[in-house]
Amino acid sequence: MAPPYESSNMRTLKLTIAYDGTGYVGWQRQPTGISIQQLVEEALQPFCRNSPRPPIVHGAGRTDAGVHATGQVASVRVDFDHPVDAVQRALNITLPGAVRVFAVEDAAPSFHARFDAKGKRYRYRIVTAPVVPPAHRWFVWHVPQRCNPAAMREAARVLVGRHDFAAFQATGSSAVDSVRTVTRIDVVEQADELHVEVEGEGFLRHMVRILTGSLVDVGVGTRPPDWVARVLASRDRRLAGRTAPASGLVLEHVDYGIDRR
Amino acid sequence: MAPPYESSNMRTLKLTIAYDGTGYVGWQRQPTGISIQQLVEEALQPFCRNSPRPPIVHGAGRTDAGVHATGQVASVRVDFDHPVDAVQRALNITLPGAVRVFAVEDAAPSFHARFDAKGKRYRYRIVTAPVVPPAHRWFVWHVPQRCNPAAMREAARVLVGRHDFAAFQATGSSAVDSVRTVTRIDVVEQADELHVEVEGEGFLRHMVRILTGSLVDVGVGTRPPDWVARVLASRDRRLAGRTAPASGLVLEHVDYGIDRR
Repeated sequence: MAPPYESSNMRTLKLTIAYDGTGYVGWQRQPTGISIQQLVEEALQPFCRNSPRPPIVHGAGRTDAGVHATGQVASVRVDFDHPVDAVQRALNITLPGAVRVFAVEDAAPSFHARFDAKGKRYRYRIVTAPVVPPAHRWFVWHVPQRCNPAAMREAARVLVGRHDFAAFQATGSSAVDSVRTVTRIDVVEQADELHVEVEGEGFLRHMVRILTGSLVDVGVGTRPPDWVARVLASRDRRLAGRTAPASGLVLEHVDYGIDRR
Repeated sequence: MAPPYESSNMRTLKLTIAYDGTGYVGWQRQPTGISIQQLVEEALQPFCRNSPRPPIVHGAGRTDAGVHATGQVASVRVDFDHPVDAVQRALNITLPGAVRVFAVEDAAPSFHARFDAKGKRYRYRIVTAPVVPPAHRWFVWHVPQRCNPAAMREAARVLVGRHDFAAFQATGSSAVDSVRTVTRIDVVEQADELHVEVEGEGFLRHMVRILTGSLVDVGVGTRPPDWVARVLASRDRRLAGRTAPASGLVLEHVDYGIDRR
């Protein structure tokens, strides 16, 4: 049964959102600054003046401060009946240019962007050239050392599959279960950049950034490729590489399996 | 004869510079804010402590406020003897990430980035999709209307060649001679963007932006393609299209003919 405050005409919207995470505290609301979640919720408020409570927008991935998205997905229960196109246009007028809504769709009433996500794809951009093009500086990590993508690929192979990734989660994280399934890691050379593409069912806090930091340690020769297998087996964060900076990371896609609109 | 203050070991450096022009007053020093020229001159100062006067950096193109560069070229006479690689590294440590020096070379003593330039290439980026990706927002002009590149190409054809471009210069400009030679205008479709590439020997103030604004008027159907020929013939700025916003424009390359290093 729906909670008593839900009027009979409640519906669930699915939002596809891109953002430049620079200068924000991340997806999720924090007392320390402005979050993307807060901006989207505030942009929805004019539609919800007659609602008993303000809208709560759930994102598929809780991206860290400074992390970007081209395909974040969010869900929200609302009781207004404006057409989705009008909602999209109004949100993009209200939101700053750093946050853009690429799609608004009606979803199944029970759709939840986080709980229903079957998988996510992240991209980590590393500039290996001596100088970072100014236009890209907030969207990459600068690793000017010679970086060997073949060694990174070799190291990445052991990470694909279902593993306990305890060694690759942020210190102090309290995930009860640190077992996750990574379905793909590709290291792609693209002009003066190396991109680490990571796909998986779910990720621990900082997991993609620690994976990437560890792969870069292998790429620049600080560690041999088989070191990553030993780190994984240790389940000890202290043995893994540095956490790659937030700026290089982008949440590109959230997969919901069979489209459940 | 060299001016009396020039010590015998003066040399000329050629700098290749990229910048994100967002928030700056343009290449040239202005009393109203921070210019790229000022930043580069200040970054050179630590090398010039024993020089009788501060270094003056001459840029090939005086880009407007908010206009970007990937291949601006500048020249400067200096009397220090540090190797060019050390100068490049030091400049990139001192300068903000918005301004990057991609090359420092020793040039002929008389080399002057502006007077010796044989040609320049600009690119103007137009996003025609309904929504601008956040990461690109400072580097494009958003034209969400349907825009016909074939019509723009047809209109552009009459602009190529040696013409009096008086109709395409900023109001109030006092260029004595408004005859310029444009060697190429291409309208290139690239994913969700249209790029106007303009090459020429030299350009009047706002010329590329007014050309682009006029071509977009044709592209969206406000004006027929042959209107551009009439505007050109009129030599009257009031008849041309709007000035496209600075954000979409980037100075990509400066040509010096036979490399005169």
